Amino acid sequence: MSPLRVAIVGFGKIARDQHVPAIAATEGVELVAVASRNASLPGVPHAATLDELLRDGPEIDAVALCTPPQVRHAQAAMALAASKHVMLEKPPGATVAEINPLVTAARAAQRTLFATWHSRFAPAVEPARQLLAGRQVTSVKITWKEDVRVWHPGQAWIFEPGGLGVFDPGINALSILTRILPQPLFVTSADLAFPANRDAPIAANLALSDVQGLQISAEFDFLQTGPQSWDIDLDTDGGPVTLSMGGARLRAGGIELVDAAEAEYAGLYRRFSELCATGEADVDLAPLQLVADAFLLGRRRMVEPFEDEP
Amino acid sequence: MSPLRVAIVGFGKIARDQHVPAIAATEGVELVAVASRNASLPGVPHAATLDELLRDGPEIDAVALCTPPQVRHAQAAMALAASKHVMLEKPPGATVAEINPLVTAARAAQRTLFATWHSRFAPAVEPARQLLAGRQVTSVKITWKEDVRVWHPGQAWIFEPGGLGVFDPGINALSILTRILPQPLFVTSADLAFPANRDAPIAANLALSDVQGLQISAEFDFLQTGPQSWDIDLDTDGGPVTLSMGGARLRAGGIELVDAAEAEYAGLYRRFSELCATGEADVDLAPLQLVADAFLLGRRRMVEPFEDEP
Repeated sequence: MSPLRVAIVGFGKIARDQHVPAIAATEGVELVAVASRNASLPGVPHAATLDELLRDGPEIDAVALCTPPQVRHAQAAMALAASKHVMLEKPPGATVAEINPLVTAARAAQRTLFATWHSRFAPAVEPARQLLAGRQVTSVKITWKEDVRVWHPGQAWIFEPGGLGVFDPGINALSILTRILPQPLFVTSADLAFPANRDAPIAANLALSDVQGLQISAEFDFLQTGPQSWDIDLDTDGGPVTLSMGGARLRAGGIELVDAAEAEYAGLYRRFSELCATGEADVDLAPLQLVADAFLLGRRRMVEPFEDEP
Repeated sequence: MSPLRVAIVGFGKIARDQHVPAIAATEGVELVAVASRNASLPGVPHAATLDELLRDGPEIDAVALCTPPQVRHAQAAMALAASKHVMLEKPPGATVAEINPLVTAARAAQRTLFATWHSRFAPAVEPARQLLAGRQVTSVKITWKEDVRVWHPGQAWIFEPGGLGVFDPGINALSILTRILPQPLFVTSADLAFPANRDAPIAANLALSDVQGLQISAEFDFLQTGPQSWDIDLDTDGGPVTLSMGGARLRAGGIELVDAAEAEYAGLYRRFSELCATGEADVDLAPLQLVADAFLLGRRRMVEPFEDEP
């Protein structure tokens, strides 16, 4: 089978750090072009925009949209109209409702639309899901605290409207949680801290539940210096279960069940390659819906201005 | 056929002004109880809470939940668990994601769940939908401006988290728009004005679109004194079309096509009665999804504090 020819659109940190090496490591997938106004990759054909790429660039089968969420919808619509498969970085868009027309367009074009949640491909997530399937979960505590200055240097879009702020990492936790728990979840309260000079929250505390009244708390913080936390602690009828390091480690009953090297994006591209072979879509909007609901329901607090340089 | 025995839960302004007379005017529907902590209706059996009503009250077939959206989810779940049909006032809940488990519960209980949008039952809405089905709409302007002090006296919940603020009336416009236009809509930008002392916006400007790039603007204002506006102006390839007075009047090509007395809630109860006969659900979350997306994507501005007494 000829390889899947992929173009990366938007060549920022996530594209360089994750997409390029993951494509290189995935059999049957080939990086044939980059579209970006500001950046390029030596030896790889380059276009300034997706439009220019589709008109003048090399033949491609698929695009991986690594641009900020605020502009992805128009790009995805353009790529599908040109009969290309589309991979969307997370979150899949700036709103929930804008995604459904893309699903319809993908179906009409017989191309795949893959709304990725990279954290679901962390090595301990599937083992955690299987472990929990046999247990009753009695409470959940999410602690997702990282330093935005370390992980998102110069990414001003993250605090612009639609950029999600601290939910940009927080949605990774929600993407794992909605995968490993059996019931649909919903937000019951939210407290959102907005820096006085920004349009997206820098910290958030959520309470969530399911139809059985499960108590879930989530603490998201974007100003964590020192040790960083990407942990989900669950109490179950079989004892405590901890998924830590963003889903790389799983501990239950005092035993380390998984402690594996992170290889999320290689998993994403294997999955994308499978989806493209059949044209099937993989679009789960539950994590973004929870974030939208947190904004809808949330109490807003204004906190001190945030500047990139502390 | 024996009449549908309905209990109203939450006996505030909308219950008194609309639900009681609409039930009285609808054949086959009967008001048999009221559940409310603070209010009752002479001659109608009363309970303080839904729980008490279900335990000690008269036999009922259905509940109409007229409580604030923040508490409706738990009440709807309780009523469905007791095998009662459920009518939800608008908006159907405080979040989008909390509704789907109710749809599942209703299906399991073989009872109906009716997420109402009363403005869709305004007399000119269906004629507008039919008129527009034969036309190309080229732009839409929504102007929805009312005086919160006149229409929502003492309803503090409206400015609490989950109370929607100016979107409480604004969602009526969105419920009409999503009914009369053929394509799914999504929000492309939002500007939200939050009073410094409140948790929900008092004014909002939205831009929306569809997959064909239709330009839709919406202005929502909760501080409109003097003439009140509940208008949707559409430009079409067949000339301008105006739906005004919240959907009671329709004008096209200089001709008044509809100008009818408002009877939205009678329409709601006829529909509810039909749904209960078959157990079918009627749950369209599109209007609430647009509001959640507006909060998710919206730029926030702080404006002067709002006090009930000017």
